[in-house]
Amino acid sequence: MKAVRFHGANDLRYEDIPVPKVGKGQVKVRPAWVGICGSGQIVKSHIVAHLLTSGTDLHEYMGGPNLCPTTPHPITGETVPLTFGHEFSGTIEEVGEEVNDYKPGDRVAIQPIIYDGTCGACLDGLHNCCWSNGFVGLSAGWGGGLAEHIVIPTTTLYRLPDNVPLEIGALIEPLAVGWHAVKISPFKKGDAVLILGGGPIGISVILALKAKGADKIIVSELSQRRQEFAKRFGADHVINPLKEDVVKRCRELCDGQGVHVVYDCAGVQAGLDAAVHATRPRGTIVNIAIWEKACSIVPNDLTFKERKYMGVATYAVGDFQEVIDAISSGSMKPDEMITQRIKLTEVEEKGFKTLINDKDNQVKILVEVGGGR
Amino acid sequence: MKAVRFHGANDLRYEDIPVPKVGKGQVKVRPAWVGICGSGQIVKSHIVAHLLTSGTDLHEYMGGPNLCPTTPHPITGETVPLTFGHEFSGTIEEVGEEVNDYKPGDRVAIQPIIYDGTCGACLDGLHNCCWSNGFVGLSAGWGGGLAEHIVIPTTTLYRLPDNVPLEIGALIEPLAVGWHAVKISPFKKGDAVLILGGGPIGISVILALKAKGADKIIVSELSQRRQEFAKRFGADHVINPLKEDVVKRCRELCDGQGVHVVYDCAGVQAGLDAAVHATRPRGTIVNIAIWEKACSIVPNDLTFKERKYMGVATYAVGDFQEVIDAISSGSMKPDEMITQRIKLTEVEEKGFKTLINDKDNQVKILVEVGGGR
Repeated sequence: MKAVRFHGANDLRYEDIPVPKVGKGQVKVRPAWVGICGSGQIVKSHIVAHLLTSGTDLHEYMGGPNLCPTTPHPITGETVPLTFGHEFSGTIEEVGEEVNDYKPGDRVAIQPIIYDGTCGACLDGLHNCCWSNGFVGLSAGWGGGLAEHIVIPTTTLYRLPDNVPLEIGALIEPLAVGWHAVKISPFKKGDAVLILGGGPIGISVILALKAKGADKIIVSELSQRRQEFAKRFGADHVINPLKEDVVKRCRELCDGQGVHVVYDCAGVQAGLDAAVHATRPRGTIVNIAIWEKACSIVPNDLTFKERKYMGVATYAVGDFQEVIDAISSGSMKPDEMITQRIKLTEVEEKGFKTLINDKDNQVKILVEVGGGR
Repeated sequence: MKAVRFHGANDLRYEDIPVPKVGKGQVKVRPAWVGICGSGQIVKSHIVAHLLTSGTDLHEYMGGPNLCPTTPHPITGETVPLTFGHEFSGTIEEVGEEVNDYKPGDRVAIQPIIYDGTCGACLDGLHNCCWSNGFVGLSAGWGGGLAEHIVIPTTTLYRLPDNVPLEIGALIEPLAVGWHAVKISPFKKGDAVLILGGGPIGISVILALKAKGADKIIVSELSQRRQEFAKRFGADHVINPLKEDVVKRCRELCDGQGVHVVYDCAGVQAGLDAAVHATRPRGTIVNIAIWEKACSIVPNDLTFKERKYMGVATYAVGDFQEVIDAISSGSMKPDEMITQRIKLTEVEEKGFKTLINDKDNQVKILVEVGGGR
């Protein structure tokens, strides 16, 4: 079968690999649509943002292997080359022994976290914090969405309701990142929020906040095109941090005190510095961004105003289903996130290279594998 | 009357100042016992820790004015020289007009926060985060405990029950710092905790945790003498961070995952670095320490395990009364914190200089002003 596999930096190959065989508790899925994870702002900018499972594909392509294992992954035992594609939907083709709750033809979204199930984090229900976790189609193996077939355990599957198309199913993964961040943050209806960065994860945070009734969403974003996207998805105020004072503006917009919650989807020191002072007393800065290195924080700036800084990682139990329900019920409308559709043969040229050269015009590029509705 | 006033670095004067006059809503108090705030680990060590209202007196004395205003404080209008002493108890001598709930002879502890009452933080009930706050006897004026009399508003007063002596009343302030930190942290009974630093605030955290039923308290502290104090007040395990691997030890003691909550009462980079990795997934690092400068944090270390870093400041509504109740009921026994008693004439020589030269043998030095029980 055909697959797009990552061999190393700038080495992405459209090649033939064996069709995987379905085993006990597993299903064979024909991927339908696959998102490329890579609209974070990338190297050569002073603003380097690689978002967790947003930007990861591109990050590996441009400078990897980083997350992709070069020694056997502790759970899957796999190493590069690995099939890419961790944001995807598909249709079940075949079910293995002891699989009773799925049948061929079922339409599903895939939650790609691979966890060991035995470590302390897993026993606490925090699979996203598993001490040896990885991702299908990225950092652990089990294939990926950018192939004609994939065999995965049923524990990764989320059934799509009839009114949620397969295309939208490929957006569940990045949407779950924003959903999870909002859910475990202290945000409550009526709170004012600041989002740093208007890329795909910034947008998924906007969509989650809108679904939860937010009505004061401020987005700080340099790119005019991304500012427009942010507004279209529901941002109430957009700030260009190079032209306006983010702290001053947030305080003006929020009783002189600042926002209740900041979501950092950029991972840039200057953004974080502003975020701290743009946050009101007892407010919280939620970091979703993957940083290249350490950041600097003035503890006294947190302490004197009892501010918090918390990290959130991907998604946990409940998030995928809640996102699917929010889309199915109409409280979340992510359709316009899809800015381009390409073929499996075009992944490198029209996918990765477009994200490098034309990122501001893209939110999500979907690769049609099996396609369909 | 006699008072000990801070004029600048190394310039603490025992001098005569006018007796203050009591006004409307105010009382005149005769300070009884006054704690010196300064057992944090001080300059010339690679470990520099100035704890918020623990270490502040000494910090000002050695390198100030820092918190002490050299331009008029926005609330009190005062500047240095200021009378020192913000950890104190006393007896009411005289009450002003419209004071109905206090009478001469009443024994009280003083909550020294001065707040404007009108800013957003105050309107949210967070006086400790007031945008222009200060402290009686430290950074704002209204006198201080190290004087024969002080006039203060009744809003600063907490009545001491009969079974809480005035000496213990002088400990309420530092105890409230630890109490507040534990209270607003996510600690719950059964959690394992790590405390960085076994000075007075570390001990106040231990005492608050014991009162709330903690049974796995680990303290990281260099000084052998302070390790002994920590054990005496209830630490279950003591680690010397120069001799043992704090991360490894905390994980060994806690299911291989680490502690639920860290209380940083030291404010040292190496301590924070260990604390992050000694904290289990979704665990929290609570910063109580005052840092001299910025710290470095690797956001990915927080994010991948969904850890939090939060700052806590002094104490808020409820804390003073809860500490008094805990002492009165016997669930908190702070008596042994008092390691030395000195006279008002001895504040510089036997107080500040002892804290500089013999800090490891001291938890709390009390100055007898009015004295009594």
